Amino acid sequence: MAGRTGRRAGKPDTRESILAAARTVFAERGFDGASIRAIAAGAGVDPALVHHYFGTKDQLFLAAMNSPVDPRELLPQVLDGDPGEVGTRLVRTFLGIWDSPAGSAAVALLRSGLTNEWTARLLREFLTTQVIRRVLQHLDLDPVEAPLRGSLVASQMIGLAMMRYVIRLEPVASVPAETLVGTVGPTVQRYLTGDLPAGPA
Amino acid sequence: MAGRTGRRAGKPDTRESILAAARTVFAERGFDGASIRAIAAGAGVDPALVHHYFGTKDQLFLAAMNSPVDPRELLPQVLDGDPGEVGTRLVRTFLGIWDSPAGSAAVALLRSGLTNEWTARLLREFLTTQVIRRVLQHLDLDPVEAPLRGSLVASQMIGLAMMRYVIRLEPVASVPAETLVGTVGPTVQRYLTGDLPAGPA
Repeated sequence: MAGRTGRRAGKPDTRESILAAARTVFAERGFDGASIRAIAAGAGVDPALVHHYFGTKDQLFLAAMNSPVDPRELLPQVLDGDPGEVGTRLVRTFLGIWDSPAGSAAVALLRSGLTNEWTARLLREFLTTQVIRRVLQHLDLDPVEAPLRGSLVASQMIGLAMMRYVIRLEPVASVPAETLVGTVGPTVQRYLTGDLPAGPA
Repeated sequence: MAGRTGRRAGKPDTRESILAAARTVFAERGFDGASIRAIAAGAGVDPALVHHYFGTKDQLFLAAMNSPVDPRELLPQVLDGDPGEVGTRLVRTFLGIWDSPAGSAAVALLRSGLTNEWTARLLREFLTTQVIRRVLQHLDLDPVEAPLRGSLVASQMIGLAMMRYVIRLEPVASVPAETLVGTVGPTVQRYLTGDLPAGPA
């Protein structure tokens, strides 16, 4: 898709100004509170130009985050099928991204999220609005419990990525992905659909 | 204990040279391969001075890592008691560190471990030699499976710390610690002593 992640040719200064303004506005207001209008104002350009370069607000956000993938393209293969196997499919798809050529960009994204409060806020918005919200909407979960379930899943998945691809702790760093699908998949499944003893607070 | 984590007065330049040399040697050779002799040589001082300032190799390593705690002091409260509840105790003790005044130092340690390959290597050595190895030695685990179990536990615990204290993903960031003890404790318990379907690779 031309221009989806911002690879379309254009005046580099304008594109970079828009991306810089987008990072600021998304970090300050969150994804939901950010508007293309505010981002355009921050970059000193017309809102139509932002749409022209980057498409929708979702697409601009992914470009601003340097996201290696568009979660919307991958979630169907996780969410479609037996709901009792969604944990397994989520771990398999997730590791597939990191084991692909996109993996180095994913490591960079994770590292950047740890650098300071500001980048952490962007990574949090990314997880919440681009991934977790969509998974939870698809599953038929108690809306009171759903947010805790989603953030527990994120804690396990991001921790797994950190140990396998960043810290490179053995043997998690080098076992076949399917070993982790088999061992971590049930954890993710329990967080999504199992009993949570303490319940939400 | 005087001087345990390097807080004893001394010539600041000498102390810093030793700590810098220690970080280099621990990162290059790993904890087990590093020697006080090599660290002393790197700092251009006598090995006796390293012992004088920092004590044992373990103590020097904790000082070089700016570790907020000495895991050996905390592990007894995790490991003593019903082995079927070790997961619960591990999560409770772990969150207790992060929720204490030592928490900000723990965040700094985690962030530094993400900065580059070199600091990641130090964090990996810290997890492996100061925490995981000691937990596994205490539990009566199949030695073939034990390393995978230990690194799965690390993936969940570090991921939990990242979401709660660094990324601050809600609601994991603000639920009471006991909610996480109740939900994540069983995961850690399964990784340590439960069936691992895929087994080690």
